[in-house]
Amino acid sequence: MAAARKPKPKSKPLARRASVGARRNPDSEAAVLAAARGLLAEKGYAGFSIDEVARRAGAGKPTIYRWWPTKADLFIAVYAEDKAASIAAPDTGSLARDLAEFTRALWGFWRETPSGRAFRALVAEAQASQAALDALRVKFLPERIDLLRHIFARAAARGEIDAADIETLLALYIGFNWFHLLTGRVEDEVEAIERMARIIVRGGGAGPTRAPEAAPQAKPRARTRQLALQLTLLPEE
Amino acid sequence: MAAARKPKPKSKPLARRASVGARRNPDSEAAVLAAARGLLAEKGYAGFSIDEVARRAGAGKPTIYRWWPTKADLFIAVYAEDKAASIAAPDTGSLARDLAEFTRALWGFWRETPSGRAFRALVAEAQASQAALDALRVKFLPERIDLLRHIFARAAARGEIDAADIETLLALYIGFNWFHLLTGRVEDEVEAIERMARIIVRGGGAGPTRAPEAAPQAKPRARTRQLALQLTLLPEE
Repeated sequence: MAAARKPKPKSKPLARRASVGARRNPDSEAAVLAAARGLLAEKGYAGFSIDEVARRAGAGKPTIYRWWPTKADLFIAVYAEDKAASIAAPDTGSLARDLAEFTRALWGFWRETPSGRAFRALVAEAQASQAALDALRVKFLPERIDLLRHIFARAAARGEIDAADIETLLALYIGFNWFHLLTGRVEDEVEAIERMARIIVRGGGAGPTRAPEAAPQAKPRARTRQLALQLTLLPEE
Repeated sequence: MAAARKPKPKSKPLARRASVGARRNPDSEAAVLAAARGLLAEKGYAGFSIDEVARRAGAGKPTIYRWWPTKADLFIAVYAEDKAASIAAPDTGSLARDLAEFTRALWGFWRETPSGRAFRALVAEAQASQAALDALRVKFLPERIDLLRHIFARAAARGEIDAADIETLLALYIGFNWFHLLTGRVEDEVEAIERMARIIVRGGGAGPTRAPEAAPQAKPRARTRQLALQLTLLPEE
């Protein structure tokens, strides 16, 4: 709250680089994120604005805009911290169990926290604002997906799924969650979630097994295609 | 365009029923939908309003509101007509081929038609408006899903997938499409679409077969759970 307005950096002996002015002061950053979190809890995404966050944090608007060019970017920073604090990445040794556990935690996060509840508003904003869509695609999804991609990659290494299917399985899995969120159905539907998890495993199935609890095949599979397919989340424009 | 303002019905010899005032005049309805379609093509969903549609159709606002209580409802009526006119339900004898064909047609519809392009705005509006969310869940999804449910039910009858998984497969499939739409990626990605279709079939697989082209099993499966699970799309409130 007491972060001082950061003065514009004067000319320095260092060679000028585009990134110099963007270097962050950790105290100011923490103050801005705390103010953003508080505003979000009070007013939701509709009442969330960089102007109001700056006022509450006692920070300069130019500084905030340099770090987070849009409201969507600042929201994503808060969301990422809150989500990391509230959801541990599961590692149960079974993809179906990992997915069921992660899904229930994610839906709970979406239902019960201010930034979780606001996420659907970011998706909505991205339908009308190119800047928000870019933030969603370039800043939000790649990092969020990374955690999930590790869960799927471990399953591929155990032989549960085919590594070549990982990106498509991710899109199906994330789509399932978004569809439930955007139609207002993220209650704790244990049976639906477990059925989804079994279908995902079977759909990516490296072998003819139907039960996710079956002993994993011995041969680990390579994490192919991952880099190439990651690019599909970057803007085409 | 020339539809006359519909006078309020006077007392009639018929027993009064709640639905009498809501009976539609087909000419007026067609004029309203044509005006709505034209407005959507010109201004998109943001510039779409019942007031402006009424002005263009020469129809009374109370009449339009009686038939379509919100902008979302009127949009859904136009979208449904346009989609039915532009996408034929595939019936190739293979779920993977049906899904690939339907997906490519759907993504083309979303890219290339005014009502298709506006759909993402309806999803966005539903994140802030309970009335739009209700319209999406109660009027939009059940009818749209019905066509897809038939495709999956035929596949279950052929033995390609387990009928008990149909609702979850539908949510995964629809979620995959929404995720691509809402992140601006509904280009004609033939390979991604065909991979998704294969995974869906394998995920719902009634047997150990991995190839969707494999000979279907003989025994048709019952369409169980369908009615009960359909209800999950109605509002919980």
